[in-house]
Amino acid sequence: MTRKFTEKTLLVATHNAGKLHEMRGIFDQHGITLKSAADFDLPEPEETETTFVGNARIKAHAAAKATGMPALADDSGIAVDALDGEPGVYTADWAETPHGRDFMKAMEKTHRLLDEIGAPEPRTAHFHATLVLAWPDGHEEVFEGVANGRLVWPPRGRDGHGYDPIFVPNGDDRTFAEMSWTEKNAISHRARAIAALVEALLD
Amino acid sequence: MTRKFTEKTLLVATHNAGKLHEMRGIFDQHGITLKSAADFDLPEPEETETTFVGNARIKAHAAAKATGMPALADDSGIAVDALDGEPGVYTADWAETPHGRDFMKAMEKTHRLLDEIGAPEPRTAHFHATLVLAWPDGHEEVFEGVANGRLVWPPRGRDGHGYDPIFVPNGDDRTFAEMSWTEKNAISHRARAIAALVEALLD
Repeated sequence: MTRKFTEKTLLVATHNAGKLHEMRGIFDQHGITLKSAADFDLPEPEETETTFVGNARIKAHAAAKATGMPALADDSGIAVDALDGEPGVYTADWAETPHGRDFMKAMEKTHRLLDEIGAPEPRTAHFHATLVLAWPDGHEEVFEGVANGRLVWPPRGRDGHGYDPIFVPNGDDRTFAEMSWTEKNAISHRARAIAALVEALLD
Repeated sequence: MTRKFTEKTLLVATHNAGKLHEMRGIFDQHGITLKSAADFDLPEPEETETTFVGNARIKAHAAAKATGMPALADDSGIAVDALDGEPGVYTADWAETPHGRDFMKAMEKTHRLLDEIGAPEPRTAHFHATLVLAWPDGHEEVFEGVANGRLVWPPRGRDGHGYDPIFVPNGDDRTFAEMSWTEKNAISHRARAIAALVEALLD
């Protein structure tokens, strides 16, 4: 059975300020205050799984067990059709450098691979987000969201993170990074997964 | 660039009457008449890929090349979180018998695997649908849709196909197979992928 979320405070198991900001805009409307992993000085567990849900689960259950509170975790990435779904769950890995994450490196690698195989336009791609809400007793609820679109080159726009500067969602001509927070949050993969959570667990 | 679909007739590369019926209900509203693979006596190509988009592409491009018309194909399946996304693209394969497809066999196998690993409730799962619209010149547009929910046992309801009798979508207590066509078509994975196509290519 679905377990409703009835508390007024929710821990989000992320150190990513952008994700927290995006979620805060939505949960505020439901009278729920978000706490972050940083508020509790939680460690970042290693993401060793091969699926979005596997990695989101690791983070959600670790945070719920460490704090005794329900904890929400997110795993997300972009699947490029001509690359048979890559980078997918390895989106962040493609951006790893000795000095941190550099998504320009990952975007350039993607573009180079697409050119090498001669992938025709449109270079369709899909942002996926998986949310896991875990309780300290091990119960969990899982939600997914998708944003459909295409990759463009060169990158455009200053806002957004990850692949946002080269992803144009269907129904628009701008990249995610050229949109305002409000515009992106109306159609993003994460917004859709959160909407599914809200529909199932809050209303 | 996105290529709009401006014709009045669309070929759907499927022999599945249920899929065709679901799509017809939506495309009718946009003044587009659907033709089926059976109308053109098209063969069913082998689905040899490991992704939804790979298999949908095979079907869409084969039909577009054979007929000289734009062709729409669908590949879909259910991803069970506790099985790390299985059966996924192999959903239909799990149902294969010497005498055709028996989804009760596939649903029983899924339930047995979940019991064997002691998967806790809720047994979250996600129906995925990928649509590929291919033109005879090789251009393609790709769309995905997701329906979030959980698996129940025993199966319930007489309508629907595939895993519908054991899938309860979030926000409801009934399985997809206990809903009317209209109700399911408002929230299904395929309906969401079609809505994305309509938004991007028709309006």
